[in-house]
Amino acid sequence: MSNSLLPILKPRSVAVIGASNTTSRIGGRPIHSMKAMGYKGRIFPVNPKYQTVQNLPAFRAIGDVPEPVDCALIAVPAAIAVEKIQACAESGVKSAVVFTSGFAEQGEDGELAQREIARIAREGDMRIVGPNCLGVFTTSDAWYGTFSNAPALMKLSAGPIGIVSQSGAYGSHVMLVMQNRGIGCNYWVTTGNESDVDVAEVIEFYAQADDVETIVAYAEGIKHADRIRKALARALDARKPVIFMKVGKTDVGARAAVSHTASLAGSDAIYDALFTQYGVYRADTTEELVDIAYACQHGSYPKGRKISLQTISGGVGVQMADDAVKYGLEVVPLPEATQKKLKDVIPFAGTSNPVDFTAQALNEPDLMLQNISLTVEEADYDSHIIFMTAVPASPFSRDVCADLFRAVKDRYPDEPMIMSLVGERDIVEIYEDLGYPVFEDPSLAVRAMAALTRFGEVFEHRDDDLPPAAPADMLPVPQMVVGEAEAKKILASAGIPVASESLASSATDAVTAASMIDGPCALKIVSSDILHKTEIGGVLLNVEGATAVEEGYRILMQRAADHAPDARIEGVLVSEMVAGGVETVLGVVSDPVFGPAVMFGLGGVFVEVLKDVTFRLAPFGVQEAHRMIDEIRSRVMLDGFRGTAPSDIDALADALARISVFAAANADRFETIDVNPFIVLPKGAAAVDALIVPKGLT
Amino acid sequence: MSNSLLPILKPRSVAVIGASNTTSRIGGRPIHSMKAMGYKGRIFPVNPKYQTVQNLPAFRAIGDVPEPVDCALIAVPAAIAVEKIQACAESGVKSAVVFTSGFAEQGEDGELAQREIARIAREGDMRIVGPNCLGVFTTSDAWYGTFSNAPALMKLSAGPIGIVSQSGAYGSHVMLVMQNRGIGCNYWVTTGNESDVDVAEVIEFYAQADDVETIVAYAEGIKHADRIRKALARALDARKPVIFMKVGKTDVGARAAVSHTASLAGSDAIYDALFTQYGVYRADTTEELVDIAYACQHGSYPKGRKISLQTISGGVGVQMADDAVKYGLEVVPLPEATQKKLKDVIPFAGTSNPVDFTAQALNEPDLMLQNISLTVEEADYDSHIIFMTAVPASPFSRDVCADLFRAVKDRYPDEPMIMSLVGERDIVEIYEDLGYPVFEDPSLAVRAMAALTRFGEVFEHRDDDLPPAAPADMLPVPQMVVGEAEAKKILASAGIPVASESLASSATDAVTAASMIDGPCALKIVSSDILHKTEIGGVLLNVEGATAVEEGYRILMQRAADHAPDARIEGVLVSEMVAGGVETVLGVVSDPVFGPAVMFGLGGVFVEVLKDVTFRLAPFGVQEAHRMIDEIRSRVMLDGFRGTAPSDIDALADALARISVFAAANADRFETIDVNPFIVLPKGAAAVDALIVPKGLT
Repeated sequence: MSNSLLPILKPRSVAVIGASNTTSRIGGRPIHSMKAMGYKGRIFPVNPKYQTVQNLPAFRAIGDVPEPVDCALIAVPAAIAVEKIQACAESGVKSAVVFTSGFAEQGEDGELAQREIARIAREGDMRIVGPNCLGVFTTSDAWYGTFSNAPALMKLSAGPIGIVSQSGAYGSHVMLVMQNRGIGCNYWVTTGNESDVDVAEVIEFYAQADDVETIVAYAEGIKHADRIRKALARALDARKPVIFMKVGKTDVGARAAVSHTASLAGSDAIYDALFTQYGVYRADTTEELVDIAYACQHGSYPKGRKISLQTISGGVGVQMADDAVKYGLEVVPLPEATQKKLKDVIPFAGTSNPVDFTAQALNEPDLMLQNISLTVEEADYDSHIIFMTAVPASPFSRDVCADLFRAVKDRYPDEPMIMSLVGERDIVEIYEDLGYPVFEDPSLAVRAMAALTRFGEVFEHRDDDLPPAAPADMLPVPQMVVGEAEAKKILASAGIPVASESLASSATDAVTAASMIDGPCALKIVSSDILHKTEIGGVLLNVEGATAVEEGYRILMQRAADHAPDARIEGVLVSEMVAGGVETVLGVVSDPVFGPAVMFGLGGVFVEVLKDVTFRLAPFGVQEAHRMIDEIRSRVMLDGFRGTAPSDIDALADALARISVFAAANADRFETIDVNPFIVLPKGAAAVDALIVPKGLT
Repeated sequence: MSNSLLPILKPRSVAVIGASNTTSRIGGRPIHSMKAMGYKGRIFPVNPKYQTVQNLPAFRAIGDVPEPVDCALIAVPAAIAVEKIQACAESGVKSAVVFTSGFAEQGEDGELAQREIARIAREGDMRIVGPNCLGVFTTSDAWYGTFSNAPALMKLSAGPIGIVSQSGAYGSHVMLVMQNRGIGCNYWVTTGNESDVDVAEVIEFYAQADDVETIVAYAEGIKHADRIRKALARALDARKPVIFMKVGKTDVGARAAVSHTASLAGSDAIYDALFTQYGVYRADTTEELVDIAYACQHGSYPKGRKISLQTISGGVGVQMADDAVKYGLEVVPLPEATQKKLKDVIPFAGTSNPVDFTAQALNEPDLMLQNISLTVEEADYDSHIIFMTAVPASPFSRDVCADLFRAVKDRYPDEPMIMSLVGERDIVEIYEDLGYPVFEDPSLAVRAMAALTRFGEVFEHRDDDLPPAAPADMLPVPQMVVGEAEAKKILASAGIPVASESLASSATDAVTAASMIDGPCALKIVSSDILHKTEIGGVLLNVEGATAVEEGYRILMQRAADHAPDARIEGVLVSEMVAGGVETVLGVVSDPVFGPAVMFGLGGVFVEVLKDVTFRLAPFGVQEAHRMIDEIRSRVMLDGFRGTAPSDIDALADALARISVFAAANADRFETIDVNPFIVLPKGAAAVDALIVPKGLT
């Protein structure tokens, strides 16, 4: 595998700039750790003050090191850090990890110094991690390019997990929590201020690394949308779950994030969109992050949402059923025939699903094996959770229980199963070794299985939802603000349905236009100088008949003249009244980091009061659009609420996908696009009003 | 303390009916456990087959036992269980714990047998736990009236927690999880089918027990509302937190619950109401249940919501700030002056709140002590969370860190503080012994502090929110369905504001009535035979002027005659049109278990589509009503949405409290009460339509 991060994560030789004999200092600890753990590569301490450092020959300067250096650890004060990095670049060092703090996180001067580091990386063709980071390590190579005290705390175990974190302290915290839980990791990278290498690039490295199966990431903000999208796409292609903690959700949190890092944090809703689109699991707590990573270790992802809940406690069965529903899993009952057979095996068993073996079952493990086999073979469940509480730990049942579940695994090695039990570490390991993820809390077992199920879905359906092709004659976003009519014409060219209408420049035109519409029509003043026409009474609804239309035309012209005397009036728009249907809002915002993001919600209070909206990054396909529609709380309004006919969901989804394609094609040309209302009818849909605000006007 | 459960939880002598020499059998295990753990009371094995059981003299029958027996354990098959219990009653045994299963949980015959047990309890003046339960234990007395294998698994440690669970398996599961976490319990009771003793009575026992400070409960359904309300009120008076897991939230879960237990599970929203009103913490997962119980052990409850977040990792500070906001805590910044002082102590520190000590601080613990002192003394935070990750575990900082936080506790013994760190058990215990609850996950530390804060609030404000007094002339709910006018008259008598209106029995009356209302009026047909008058066009709005009113009267009479020829027509109601304001819905349902529960929500889609409603058990006070109003997602609509004036929240809260008093006073007389719409105005409020459905009509 060729990758510019190899010198950082697989270095054959390391220089420590600012090497120290004091193993507790940041220039001493890495050397100490590497020597203690048996790093196989060459270590070159660099410090003019010493002949030797920790019994290794030391060098006055990086230039004096006689051999090529893959990675330099920068452990000197901020004042001299930049020159040392420069020296590394000049000496052909391939990469550097900069521990030194005092850069962008501490105001403008630091920001400038950090730009210098970025420049050196660019021009010196050297990859740089940090500054202000806790470093990196690669467990299998005993490469400890970090001053974290983690290696001093415990023997860190390897495992198919790669961790990357902008925060050094959090990165080591979550790694240690995992180690305590028996979850090893092969790679650990903290990116700090990200002058060069960022979280995204490390994720991409992990996506390609043979010895990483699960990726755990932490960020306060992402600076390069293109990099993160490429990285997450690669991880998805490689069927490697990404579990992400992104902090700064609330205003308070985000404020703290900005004060803490130099990253430009995009709006949190946009991050949700990013994560949803790339099948990333967003964890809210460290425990959730660790739980899901732990469950992924066994790497068996259900093919669907149907789950069987098997328990020796009816009460816990109820609880797991509640949780399964909450997490979107399907607790379908066993086939009647199978239930009958279960009853024959254990008369008192609850046989629907949850399957309650009852305590009796424990006396005859063979019966439980029979029951589990029936459930697996005669129904088409995609996953199983088995709750055994302390039975596997009890001296009365320890061995029979282990034998039972060894037999189950032998019979069904590929069935996704999670075990919920309570016992000491040694008991838990018996079942982990058999291939069961083990959870003490049955509810968290369900949450974990739901996460595995979601990964299974996104891995399956990775490629079958491409954005629709843009029409050949799709019009671009113009340079200047255009009126409603023009805006709708442009959107129509992108394949978005709009209300039939025509622009009248005289009362007579208006009457003619109206006569071509059956039923009443709407009259609206059209002027690129009047963006919010309702506010000046520039809209008349349900106008019917020649006289009314003629009169309406005059009224609108008068109001325009009164309220906006200088406005260039293009005329009056005569539109069909789109009757019935459900009012929705299609919007696009241009995120400073991620570019165009499409918003969807229902009109009125749903968007304005309840903020019941969802976002996706443009462009996306029709299936993604359907997922957007299904996400909002007010979804039911589209299903035909109180006897009204159901709305044409497909037309809506198509419009969402097409506006995303239009937005992506015009990424740099607009600030916002609003289609409000976009009315979804029982058959079809129509944009009734639209506003496009080009970039760089304000 | 005198309590009828004392013979069950503090027995001086125990008989085991169906005693066995086989320690793995349910008749053998309790004796084995008690002997092994050193139960001080007398044990009388009862089994006609043996002279001795486990080296204790055995008796043929309970009648042969020469001494008074406080508690009998029933470990015989269902077929003979009832007669054995009867025998116990006749021998003056004070209580029984019935392990035997095969009763209400297994259909009608079992249900009948269980009624027998209930009768024996009643008539024999004997308290009975079970049947179908796993038993009870009292750690301090080594009283193990259970066949759980828990005592065989580990030495169970005592602690100021009382556990009660309907499910035996779950009860022992959560108890073992707690034990593994180092949380001991003094009492453990599983109530099974609750033929006599139920979860509520055990909670009440714990509320009065000197050696219980925190109560942990599990239930699938509650059968006696009066008992649980009394018990929770006592716990609240005793300032003992109750942490409750109630399963059967979803339809699937509830179905499973019914199939599993004999309990009549009330609707889940009603349980939420119950728990909210009595300050119970409802846990969704076992881990949450255990976390909160753990945090309560240190028993220090914040006086308010202002929290300080102190961290050596900026990133984790951001995360904790997010969590604090999510859980309703207030992350207010430090005073400017204090921030300046912090900067003087540690130049690079983030000083707002979260306070980020940065890694540097670790080198000088005195500085951290200074910082923490400044934060505690110069600001008025109610609680503090300190994130130290692995620093307390690191060989480089273990001792200084312990000394530092010992000093902090010495200075501020009463400040609620939680520590977040990662380390082995021995490290954690150092801080637990100092009086810090310790959490590995900073987010869960925040959740726990939020829970302690909530308990602090309910303990403080227990008594200052009494329901308003019922007006002396409050009318009762009538025996038969009454029309809208009568319904509103009744509600008005209860102190609920209604739109001014009068009943007209002729067109002329109507005109006169309308003339006394300024502005347009509403005309509605009034007939107790026509419940849904809108459906027959029985309502005319915005009618103005004598002719229009006269005409309207005739139209309504005609429509009534057409659609409901047999209906007794009382006349036409002439009401003021309540203009503006926000439409809300006040409802009351009569829950089969809990009686009248008041529902509140906003009109239209909010109630009908979004189900954005909240419930409380009647009666309640104005403050509780305010909490209801604050709970709904659409709350903002009442604050003056888009320039409209804010609504009169006090008038709304008053109406909610008063309808709760009315409902409680008429508890057994109605099925439902609907006040829809109840329009809340900028000043005042008015019920515009109302429907009261008396009991026993359908």
